[in-house]
Order: sequence, then C-alpha cells, then structure tokens
Amino acid sequence: MFLLFTDFGWQGPYVGQVKAVLATRCPTHSIIDLMHDAPAFRPREAGYLLAAIVHWLKPGGVVVAVVDPGVGSARAAIAAAVDGCWFVGPDNGLLAPIINAAVVEHRQVLTLPTPQRASASFHGRDVFAPAAAELALHGAIADQREIMQWVGRDWPADIDQVIYVDGYGNVLTGRRAATLPCSMGPVIGGQPVTAARTFADVAPGTAFWYRNSIGLVEIAVNQASAAQQLGLQVGDSLPFQQFA
Amino acid sequence: MFLLFTDFGWQGPYVGQVKAVLATRCPTHSIIDLMHDAPAFRPREAGYLLAAIVHWLKPGGVVVAVVDPGVGSARAAIAAAVDGCWFVGPDNGLLAPIINAAVVEHRQVLTLPTPQRASASFHGRDVFAPAAAELALHGAIADQREIMQWVGRDWPADIDQVIYVDGYGNVLTGRRAATLPCSMGPVIGGQPVTAARTFADVAPGTAFWYRNSIGLVEIAVNQASAAQQLGLQVGDSLPFQQFA
Amino acid sequence: MFLLFTDFGWQGPYVGQVKAVLATRCPTHSIIDLMHDAPAFRPREAGYLLAAIVHWLKPGGVVVAVVDPGVGSARAAIAAAVDGCWFVGPDNGLLAPIINAAVVEHRQVLTLPTPQRASASFHGRDVFAPAAAELALHGAIADQREIMQWVGRDWPADIDQVIYVDGYGNVLTGRRAATLPCSMGPVIGGQPVTAARTFADVAPGTAFWYRNSIGLVEIAVNQASAAQQLGLQVGDSLPFQQFA
Repeated sequence: MFLLFTDFGWQGPYVGQVKAVLATRCPTHSIIDLMHDAPAFRPREAGYLLAAIVHWLKPGGVVVAVVDPGVGSARAAIAAAVDGCWFVGPDNGLLAPIINAAVVEHRQVLTLPTPQRASASFHGRDVFAPAAAELALHGAIADQREIMQWVGRDWPADIDQVIYVDGYGNVLTGRRAATLPCSMGPVIGGQPVTAARTFADVAPGTAFWYRNSIGLVEIAVNQASAAQQLGLQVGDSLPFQQFA
Repeated sequence: MFLLFTDFGWQGPYVGQVKAVLATRCPTHSIIDLMHDAPAFRPREAGYLLAAIVHWLKPGGVVVAVVDPGVGSARAAIAAAVDGCWFVGPDNGLLAPIINAAVVEHRQVLTLPTPQRASASFHGRDVFAPAAAELALHGAIADQREIMQWVGRDWPADIDQVIYVDGYGNVLTGRRAATLPCSMGPVIGGQPVTAARTFADVAPGTAFWYRNSIGLVEIAVNQASAAQQLGLQVGDSLPFQQFA
Repeated sequence: MFLLFTDFGWQGPYVGQVKAVLATRCPTHSIIDLMHDAPAFRPREAGYLLAAIVHWLKPGGVVVAVVDPGVGSARAAIAAAVDGCWFVGPDNGLLAPIINAAVVEHRQVLTLPTPQRASASFHGRDVFAPAAAELALHGAIADQREIMQWVGRDWPADIDQVIYVDGYGNVLTGRRAATLPCSMGPVIGGQPVTAARTFADVAPGTAFWYRNSIGLVEIAVNQASAAQQLGLQVGDSLPFQQFA
C-alpha cells in the first residue's frame, strides 16, 4: 500500500503522474490519496499533521510525503523506516515529527539517490515515487546510506500553532489533546476558548476546542468557520492558558 | 469493490483515512470514489441521488455512504443488503430510497455495532469503514441484528425537488424521467420548462428538461448554469404540470 | 492499468461512474486519475497536453481520454494502439497528437461501436469505459474496423499556443522545449520572456520560460501567477522570437 500526502492539490497532471509511476512499477499495490492539500510550502506544520494522522492509522506500506518548497535546491531526499512503515520525502522537516517520535531501535533514516534523469521541478514523480516503489518491492534502496541527522531533529513533540484549516474552517493545532487538561485552552483575541466534547454541546456561533479524530486540539465554532470568526491561519501561534 | 459516496469534499485528510482503513483490512479490493460532494448535511436528497446512480450501475461489493449531520448523536448505524450489494451508512434516510425500492425478499437491514474506540466525530472512518471491510471479507457482521424499521421507510419513490446541482449548474431532481410524460414539466417562476432530448436540440440560453444519464429529470440551460439562471438550489420544490 | 484523462472535474458522480464500470469489469486492474481538469471543451489543446504527459510516462495499459464537446452528435468514437498502449476517446483531435507522433508500423486506429443502451450525454461511462475494459481484457474490440483518417491527422507536432494553465498560474504551451534554442522565447505584450533553468534562478515577480517536467515550454513567474500577470489563457497564440 502506498499513501500519498502532498500539497499538490487535485488540479493538474501532478498527482496523476506520481501515481502512474507507482502503479507501473508496483501493479498490485493499492495507492491511497491521504490528502493533497497539506499546508502548502510549510513542511513543518505539514509534518505535525502527518504525524498525527499516521499515529492514528498505524499504516503499513510506504507513505510518499511531498511538501517541498526547496525542490531543485540542494536539500536532501530521505527515506525513514519507522515502526514497520516507510516514509519517503524531502529532508526539510516534513518527516521529523514522525521520526522523532519513534524509539531509536525502531527507526532508520536513509538518504536517497537522485536519478540521473530526474527533472529539476518534479521530484515527487522523479525521486520520491521511484524510491517508494523500490522500497515497496525490495524493502531497501540501492546505494542507501544511513544518516543520524535530519532537519527538525530537535523539534518538540507538540507545537502550539495552527497547522491546518480544513474545508469547514475548523482549526487544527499541533498540540496533542492528551497533553492538555480540559481546564486549559487557548486565548484568542482576549477571549478564552474552553473545551467541549463535540459540536452538539455548544450553542451555534460559540467557539470551543475539542479532541479531534486524530487526537489533536482542534478549535471549532458550531455552524460556522472558526478560522474566519477567530481570524486564524496556518502558522499562527496559540498559547494555551490555565482557566480559573 | 468498495464504492464511496460522501459529502466530505476532496479537501482534508477525511476521505483518505476512510480509504486507508479499507485498504489496510482488504488489500486486494478496489476502492472507487463515487462522489464526495453529495448534498452536504442533506441525507434525504442525497439518498435519492444515490439510489438513481446505484440503479443504473447495479454494482456489486460494498457501498459506503456517509452524509451524516447527526454524527455523534444517538442515530443508529445500519447496513443493508439489497440485490446482492451491501450498503453501509447512518440511519437517517440516506439509504431509505435504495432499501424501499427493493423487493422484500431481496433485502435485509441490520444495525451496526459502534466500536469501543470510535471517535465522536468521524464515524466514516471508525464505524462505517470497519463494518464495510467486515462485510467485504465475511458477508456478515458480528453481533448483527436485523431490523424492520428505518428512517424514511415511508418515503415515496420519487420527490419533486432539487436533489443536486452539478459543477455545470445542471439541476437534478428526485423524479425519475420514466414516470413523466414529455408533455409535462416543471413551471419555474411562471415559465414552463419543456422537454428536449439533449443540449443540441435547444437554443443557447434556453432552459429545458431531459432524461439524464442516471434516468432522472434534469433541468439544464444550453451553455449556461440552470441553477443560476432559474435561481434553484438543493431542496427546492418543483411541482410538475401538464402542458397544453 | 487504466489512466483517466478528462475535463469532468472532481465534482459530481461522473468520474466515479466511469471508474465503477471499469472496476466492475476489470476488478484486478488499477485505475489512475491522470487529471480531470484537462482544458474544458478544447480537445485540440488537451490533445497536445496528453501527448506530452504520455511521451514522458510511456505507460502501458489503456488511457481513457474524454474531452468531448460533441457528445451525442455524430462524431465517431475511436481506439488507437500506439507503441503498446491503448487510447480510447472521441474522434475530435484529442488523440491526434499521440497517433501522429507514432511511426506508422507501431500504430493502429479503430472505430468503436456505440452500445445500444448508451445514453446521449455520458459516453465516458457508456462508450469509452466499456471499450477500454474490453481492450484491457482481450486486446481487441468486437466488430473493430481499422481507419486511416482521424480528425487532426494533419496537425503539426508543436503548436505555439497556451494549452493549459495549472493551479499555480503556470502557463503550459504546446511547444516542446527541445525544439527551441535558449536564445528564443515568446514576446508577450511587447516584453520578451527569456529562458531560465528553474524558479530559483530569477527574481520574484519576473516572468521566464523553462523546460517543464513533461518537456514543454512553460511560462512562469517566480512567486506569482504567470497567467494573471501576463493575461494569458488556454488557446492564446504565443509566437516565439529570436532574441539579440
């Protein structure tokens, strides 16, 4: 199984070419679009989002992750084996929250070669997809070289920031809800946002936070867009405070 | 084969997680996205649309249908075997047009258990996908319990309402064209809308109705958006009248 | 493997029904969405785009291509075997750039029958998908009839026009970059657009052209939309000139 996580969007021939490369080399493997609107050009926020999804799903197979503003530059391409699943992507922090969370004995990080024929602008198709196919077929990469350092190796397990705004305007943070008591919450524009179990528990138009389906603190407004109502976007800081 | 029919949209990690659960449990089954812009939060209209698509396709396998404004509330989750195909979804009317249309001997309706670990907000991933996988693998659900009542059991076979507006602005109704003579049609804003075979048969800018590719009465305007030109949206009533 | 290339968009139950037909008849074949926002109603421009993608991918299997403003009219449906891959679509020029580029000994063009039950408005589902499934299973079509003429048989190998604008506003042309020296480029609004290797080589806000990942001349603006900044859209002519 391949799982794709990118900021390519659904427009254009980009996702399709990545999938065509995978399906040509691995005709019997399924290919799942995890999402293609990961935070664009923001590998750090995207990395915390991917880690939360993966933590819940515990997938096998190979995850192809591409949020890569530095494509064509000197940044390395890496593959990481974490708890029995492979992750392939740029070395720009996108995979760091996943790698960091694993115990040292259960992870291995490799640098990937750049194929001769690779274009300068489309490493998803030319670098990451071929590497993912090779890992799916053989469980290893020719000329693989293990590394002990990667971008984001020193990042914390949680970040108190907006990491994603979904199609409903719900605001996902990089803070795992299990680390936060219900008596805490963010203060936004001077207003404390308290916890609720779910939408039905608050009045329409009221902002609240809840533990979302991938275990993160998510800020929502019943029947409205929290992002719009609270003026929040990806990258904004959200300091959490203790309420009375 | 799994067929997905939801109002999740293509944004966000929602459809992807449902598919990851299915592919993990049933690696050799194909997963088809039937559509993800079913009428949002409108299980009734979505149900008539799904029934028309399914009636045409006569698919095998398992259809996972999720249009579920009551997620997290007490509404039941059900599975229905209809003419050799399984349907899984909330008991809010979404599956009623399909179940009602089947002869009693060829249908069976079950309630689904809610797994202990299920989140409050994402039953597509936590309730419906696991049940669909179990049905695909075993043709039955552990602890299944047959029921004789479901929401929408008394609904008619056709509804004279807008059930969907597509990307071109074409207006799909819940009325099967085979039940309507060509001498009838809707009156909208005092204007009768007459039948045509296809777009090429009417002048640009003219509204008409035709039997669409899934057998429903569809209202269109040649080279324009019928929804915009006629001011129609999902849920609007469309009484049909006999013309001269 | 099936590869889908259409202008259907991701909305509505259209792509999903095509895939359901394919998956029902060929359960073990993978189905890849190459793109669904091909230039709408413009089979000529779409054809040059498809040819460039296919030239790069060299896929096997069956490509189902549908950009078909004449659906329901008398235009023929065709299948073309080109270099070991099948292409199915309307005979309106969409497949011409691919067929024309193949050497005569490695291509074969057939007309497709229209199934009795086919709807007037949805040949993607009712004509092209069934033919694609038959080709995938048997490598031939019942009642196939070879033809020597097709719409666009006399078209050139390159067209100096905009053939696609992607989600970032990058402007793809129908000119293969390998045919153009770096000393040439388009003049747009009196301004010459010179070549660069990639985005990082030009200042933000500057327009340039480069060889894109499928080998075409693409016009881009670093950190902005070239289409918007230069006022370009699909179909516009782009005469290339020799600079200095």
